[in-house]
Amino acid sequence: MRLLHTADWHIGRRLHGFDLTDVQEDAFKQIEQIAIDEKVDGILLAGDLYDRGMPSENSVSLLNKMIQKLNLEDRLPIYAISGNHDSAIRLSTGAPWFEATKFYMATSIEQAFQPITVGNSQIFLLPYFEPFAAQQYFENEKITHLDQAVKAVVEKIKTLFDPAKKHILVAHFFVAGSSVTDSETQLSVGGLAEVPLSVLSDFDYVALGHLHGRQALQADNAAYSGSPVKFSLSEADQEKGVYILDTENMERTFKALQPLRDVTRLHDSFEKLTNPIYYEKIGRKDYFGITLTDTKPIPNVLARLREIYPNIVSLDREKGYQPSINPRSLNVKNQNPMELLDQFYESIAKEDLTEQQKKWAENALGKANREVQK
Amino acid sequence: MRLLHTADWHIGRRLHGFDLTDVQEDAFKQIEQIAIDEKVDGILLAGDLYDRGMPSENSVSLLNKMIQKLNLEDRLPIYAISGNHDSAIRLSTGAPWFEATKFYMATSIEQAFQPITVGNSQIFLLPYFEPFAAQQYFENEKITHLDQAVKAVVEKIKTLFDPAKKHILVAHFFVAGSSVTDSETQLSVGGLAEVPLSVLSDFDYVALGHLHGRQALQADNAAYSGSPVKFSLSEADQEKGVYILDTENMERTFKALQPLRDVTRLHDSFEKLTNPIYYEKIGRKDYFGITLTDTKPIPNVLARLREIYPNIVSLDREKGYQPSINPRSLNVKNQNPMELLDQFYESIAKEDLTEQQKKWAENALGKANREVQK
Repeated sequence: MRLLHTADWHIGRRLHGFDLTDVQEDAFKQIEQIAIDEKVDGILLAGDLYDRGMPSENSVSLLNKMIQKLNLEDRLPIYAISGNHDSAIRLSTGAPWFEATKFYMATSIEQAFQPITVGNSQIFLLPYFEPFAAQQYFENEKITHLDQAVKAVVEKIKTLFDPAKKHILVAHFFVAGSSVTDSETQLSVGGLAEVPLSVLSDFDYVALGHLHGRQALQADNAAYSGSPVKFSLSEADQEKGVYILDTENMERTFKALQPLRDVTRLHDSFEKLTNPIYYEKIGRKDYFGITLTDTKPIPNVLARLREIYPNIVSLDREKGYQPSINPRSLNVKNQNPMELLDQFYESIAKEDLTEQQKKWAENALGKANREVQK
Repeated sequence: MRLLHTADWHIGRRLHGFDLTDVQEDAFKQIEQIAIDEKVDGILLAGDLYDRGMPSENSVSLLNKMIQKLNLEDRLPIYAISGNHDSAIRLSTGAPWFEATKFYMATSIEQAFQPITVGNSQIFLLPYFEPFAAQQYFENEKITHLDQAVKAVVEKIKTLFDPAKKHILVAHFFVAGSSVTDSETQLSVGGLAEVPLSVLSDFDYVALGHLHGRQALQADNAAYSGSPVKFSLSEADQEKGVYILDTENMERTFKALQPLRDVTRLHDSFEKLTNPIYYEKIGRKDYFGITLTDTKPIPNVLARLREIYPNIVSLDREKGYQPSINPRSLNVKNQNPMELLDQFYESIAKEDLTEQQKKWAENALGKANREVQK
């Protein structure tokens, strides 16, 4: 059996104010095509379908369309769970009807104990949950942290193991030791919200959601598929895609997606970035995080760059505007105001005051002094 | 065939700040019981399932439970439409799956032209829609008002009529000449949002939603079921319930619901309302709109009444606090301050200042005068 593993669609997400709808739609179409080309037997969708618990009507419409396409038109079974960004209650709407077409949408902890047997495997769907939900479910007040909660869940799941089958878990949490990016919401609020990999060792494969980079975890029997779309500049260098899992040997193959608009860093001088010879070679519609090597002030820098690169998500200077002299080390009280201004201007603008600027400053200082003496 | 006609559940609605969840749940259970007792073949649910387009998680959970109970457990077909309070997009979530169990959830105008043939009838589901949607659907920019829009829709529906069948329409709009209460949202925003009854004359029955009182419209072939719960004081005297429609003769029978907590007006003196002989005979947990006949000030009146009637939704005076003398007619500048106070107090409190009150006022006035003269 072949399964496609994806997660963290975050429908409705924005990137520094930019609407990602068409990028997400395009990534979806690629995922659908991969599912068809690879003749998969189902989709593992490991949580964070929406970016927020109260998604907009546009987001609801978009996700509904995607799920209907996969499940009703392409007739692909879907094994889905809710993530920490989803409202479990909202996402559960209609779920009892969905199973008739093999769309399994698990949103509460007890559903983890209703394995779906398909092909050579048992699939367990464990949605994102708070330790408190496990405390209630197991009636055990000692469960206060996520690692304890997942351990209890896994112990119970193991009692349901059919030894003749492979065991696949779909889950949404942070596995201890994984590396993070800027775009994931930290799960831990005053608690240890990490699950040690060892807790998951009895599964043949754990299809994880939550972390947005597939490199976040290096493990034989567990992987984050990562998000299909880059959600922050810190993901600029990641390759996004999905896994195809072969349940015979539990080998996974990564299938990359080509972003409609990539998230890219540019690091160069203003002169070079605004030179057609440079920018005509690159995809100017990408989302750019630009770091300028310039030190001098550049009037209207953002507006001028946006004429060339319409989707700038951040702009900074390599060396910042850090003054080269620490102002606190200056003996300020004993210095001539014009000298101080001169030094200050030089430290910020990396150039000297012009003669005209000096004249203006001297006039202003003279006027200010006369006011004080009155 | 027998159908139950209900509408305007408005799950999530509050009554002057009071949560109606348990009242709505109780009304639902009664509706379910009527459906079972009357052995109906289906439920017509004519819009405004939710009170708002973005319902809370509690509301989503409650409505999901109700629909699942009726359709999946009781195996009752449901013929539902979205109303002006619903988000059509949100309510459409899962709809393509629902039809497998005969739960029809229509949320867009084109679904009105997909009649469901069942028993001796064709059922047409016309959700609430804006005239603009009809303008787009019919590609006719002359459609700007609701009456024109519904007329165009009905003309098209009639081309789909099977002459061997009865024709039932489920719809959510304001029929011209109907009477309103305080709890319906006016549909008309700068447009004529009324549908003449004559437009509906070719239907054997029009199961309407939108107006909350079943008496709103008097017609042979069309009725508002009204809401199952009272949503305002102006509905205090209404009897709430559902219709049972017999599709053989198109006769409808009203089945009343008993409210868990009623909405009631009380109109009496404070003394009487706080007398156990009076209040121990009535359902003190009801929602009360109280009008006091008293004219004198009553300290802490609301708090004292709430000790007896915990759910007071409004409190006013029969005669208000209207002063009997128009203060503007007084020759204020030439009058003694004590006389003015005397007149003012009498006009508001309907009684004279006591000797003690006069003494306090004189002391205060004297002190104020001395301050001014300093």
